[in-house]
Amino acid sequence: MRGRSLPFAEISRIVGQENTVCSPEDLACYSYDASKISSLPEVVVFPGNTAEVSELLKLANRERLPVFPRGAGTGMVGAAVPGNGGMVMVLTRFNRILEIDPDNMIAVVEPGVITGELQKSLSPHGLFYPPDPASLAFSTIGGNVAMCAGGPRAVKYGVTRDYVLGLTVVLPTGSVLRTGTRTVKGVVGYDLTRLMVGSEGTLGVFTEIILRLIPTPESARTLMAVFPLLEDAARAVSQIIRQRIVPSTIEIMDRSAIRAVENYLHMGLPTEVEALLLIEVDGRPVVLDEDANRIAEICLDLGASKVETARSETEREQLWQARRAVSPALGRIKPGKINEDITVPRTRIPALIRAIGNLAVKYDLIIVCFGHAGDGNIHTNIMLDKKNRDELKRAEMAVEELFRTVLDLGGTLSGEHGVGIAKSPFMQWEVGDEGLEAMGRIKKALDPLNILNPGKMFTPNRAFFRA
Amino acid sequence: MRGRSLPFAEISRIVGQENTVCSPEDLACYSYDASKISSLPEVVVFPGNTAEVSELLKLANRERLPVFPRGAGTGMVGAAVPGNGGMVMVLTRFNRILEIDPDNMIAVVEPGVITGELQKSLSPHGLFYPPDPASLAFSTIGGNVAMCAGGPRAVKYGVTRDYVLGLTVVLPTGSVLRTGTRTVKGVVGYDLTRLMVGSEGTLGVFTEIILRLIPTPESARTLMAVFPLLEDAARAVSQIIRQRIVPSTIEIMDRSAIRAVENYLHMGLPTEVEALLLIEVDGRPVVLDEDANRIAEICLDLGASKVETARSETEREQLWQARRAVSPALGRIKPGKINEDITVPRTRIPALIRAIGNLAVKYDLIIVCFGHAGDGNIHTNIMLDKKNRDELKRAEMAVEELFRTVLDLGGTLSGEHGVGIAKSPFMQWEVGDEGLEAMGRIKKALDPLNILNPGKMFTPNRAFFRA
Repeated sequence: MRGRSLPFAEISRIVGQENTVCSPEDLACYSYDASKISSLPEVVVFPGNTAEVSELLKLANRERLPVFPRGAGTGMVGAAVPGNGGMVMVLTRFNRILEIDPDNMIAVVEPGVITGELQKSLSPHGLFYPPDPASLAFSTIGGNVAMCAGGPRAVKYGVTRDYVLGLTVVLPTGSVLRTGTRTVKGVVGYDLTRLMVGSEGTLGVFTEIILRLIPTPESARTLMAVFPLLEDAARAVSQIIRQRIVPSTIEIMDRSAIRAVENYLHMGLPTEVEALLLIEVDGRPVVLDEDANRIAEICLDLGASKVETARSETEREQLWQARRAVSPALGRIKPGKINEDITVPRTRIPALIRAIGNLAVKYDLIIVCFGHAGDGNIHTNIMLDKKNRDELKRAEMAVEELFRTVLDLGGTLSGEHGVGIAKSPFMQWEVGDEGLEAMGRIKKALDPLNILNPGKMFTPNRAFFRA
Repeated sequence: MRGRSLPFAEISRIVGQENTVCSPEDLACYSYDASKISSLPEVVVFPGNTAEVSELLKLANRERLPVFPRGAGTGMVGAAVPGNGGMVMVLTRFNRILEIDPDNMIAVVEPGVITGELQKSLSPHGLFYPPDPASLAFSTIGGNVAMCAGGPRAVKYGVTRDYVLGLTVVLPTGSVLRTGTRTVKGVVGYDLTRLMVGSEGTLGVFTEIILRLIPTPESARTLMAVFPLLEDAARAVSQIIRQRIVPSTIEIMDRSAIRAVENYLHMGLPTEVEALLLIEVDGRPVVLDEDANRIAEICLDLGASKVETARSETEREQLWQARRAVSPALGRIKPGKINEDITVPRTRIPALIRAIGNLAVKYDLIIVCFGHAGDGNIHTNIMLDKKNRDELKRAEMAVEELFRTVLDLGGTLSGEHGVGIAKSPFMQWEVGDEGLEAMGRIKKALDPLNILNPGKMFTPNRAFFRA
């Protein structure tokens, strides 16, 4: 039906019949990701080693069969969703931690390892892999690398790209490469490792990942600061960092987020204030009390009406409770949402949140903002009932205007989710025709037949709203 | 003479006659870099803005004129040396710091800014750009980005790539791109920024660089530890880091380096020991004394015969004196040297230095090792008189065997100098045919006529010894 017949026998020969599925119910399971965009593949395979991945890609080139690699399918933008049939290649059998080397502070892992599980395995060695996407209990490290996952700790510790030292990667043509090094330094040839990080499964399939690790922070302190005025909260964030304290997380909730949580949990949050900051510092115990005191002082000096510091793990959990409740609380407001992970330089957060407030009024929408104030990554949730066509239309218009605003503020359309299908209509706005052209040339150089994860990033389709 | 005539008038029209030179003495000045490999260009131009760079590259494509971008020419591998005539494009007129933004902790700079000058300009703002190549008083930030410069502080702070957020880059075809973001997070499209970092002037000419900064460390402590046995020194390095102390630098000198310095300065260094570590920690004063004490304890526990801790800036300078004297001391041993910046996982340093000792015996050479023990980057200096053909031949053989050893130990042939001309014969050893092929495809995709910095990286010529 797509001008080709599926080479099922050959696929089965490569990965084994037990690792090749094409019943309708199996295909349905691998037709979507967390974006809820969906499209049925023709076959789903579970390769077990690098050679099988290579053979499959060579076959796919010969047969012009599109291949869609995926891990746990927790991505937010449809980057792992198939299109026009094709083969979904599930990497979950690559689930081994191959090596933990505490002296050289590296780990070598397969892409199907769950990120949270990896972190647990490192802990007894006193080692720490900082990136902490919200999905970490479910998402795979391979998916994290493919999307360059972020998380709250980026303000201090950076994102996935900062921890990937090397890869074993099968190129779209089936050729197997080892990129990078096992050391922090290494400058032989082009940095293919970082080109692959965040390439959203369009340039290669990773089968082994070398990660840089750091020592686990010894301890942490948590504070919550309440700010009647948004601008004061933003000034406090900058001032803390200027005082040479880089917190491991600085989370912000705007008034709409505070209200959503208060309506949900009735925990006595101040619903009239404009911002709430949740700040965590980590490191050596001897400095943490000093850090926490300095932070509290800065916040109070700059207009905070209240600062609470957790004195115990229980108190810390209480402070985090409000932040953690945001997502479930949103479900009470409307059945659906559009969640954009826009990012601006952190001093522009007040301008961004004010502009979002104006959009909410202009388009008669409820928009809830929360996220990572330290790195300017604000999750903007437009609440809606997607069955309400008029509301959806207004939301679409608000998103477009939001994206223009973000770019005007010197920001980026995606801090951590990526482009995939969801943001492909807008990629040109940020990278320009020259950027698209250069990226397209690289894609074509490594994937001349456009076999690997086609239809992502470069294809500005309009299917960007979640089902 | 090269099958083309130089479009001198058009070049002058683009950059102005005062910025176009082709007298023999001017050409000679731009015929070499710190590798001392040299070759005369046909013309040297000093463009003053992005549009001029773009026009020059378009002209070069039309006329098939090779273009060789360069900054201060401090590179160690000939990456900025012209070949087969062509145009040297000097970026030193791009010498402005365009923006320092302390609240968002970024700086926007032009590529011709001297790295050390940039650091000085940041200091009053309490901001810190950590990469510290030995050339920083002379080398430009553009050259640092092109080569992904390192330095002693990499063990704690990483290398150049970890601080470049975005670029304005003129592609080989003359098209102007803005890559990356002004934020730590940003995942829209391929990571062209990091592809450009370390591409050695072969993929684009940078005209603007956005740098991530961090707060300046408040204070530092310095220790020197003397180890009778090399293996004990290496164990101490690992143990310090396992105890969650990441020093800002851990420099090592082997016995031959200690002896060279002692013969040069007569400062009473212990010439019978195998290793000397110079360790510096930085950060909050309240933890530094504790850190310094812990480090001293670890070193003594693991076999150090002596540990000195600097109690003042004067004492600190004294401790650094030995390390700083290594390079001048080497000049006393032989008139020439081959300096390789090989890098291995830090636990493999003893195996590496032992193997180097064996090579020195086998090939009857003096080989001096010192460098960055924290990140495994050991500068290996084969001392020789290059007029002595036999010695040079033995040195060549030793280098080849050294490179094999480094790769066997899981290391890389270059931690911070790059490939350029000097290491191009060996690049395939590390990245393989598949790596060369993939990099070659990317090069061709962005530079179809091979106009920009041809003859580097991909051309395995044998001109790898310094003049």
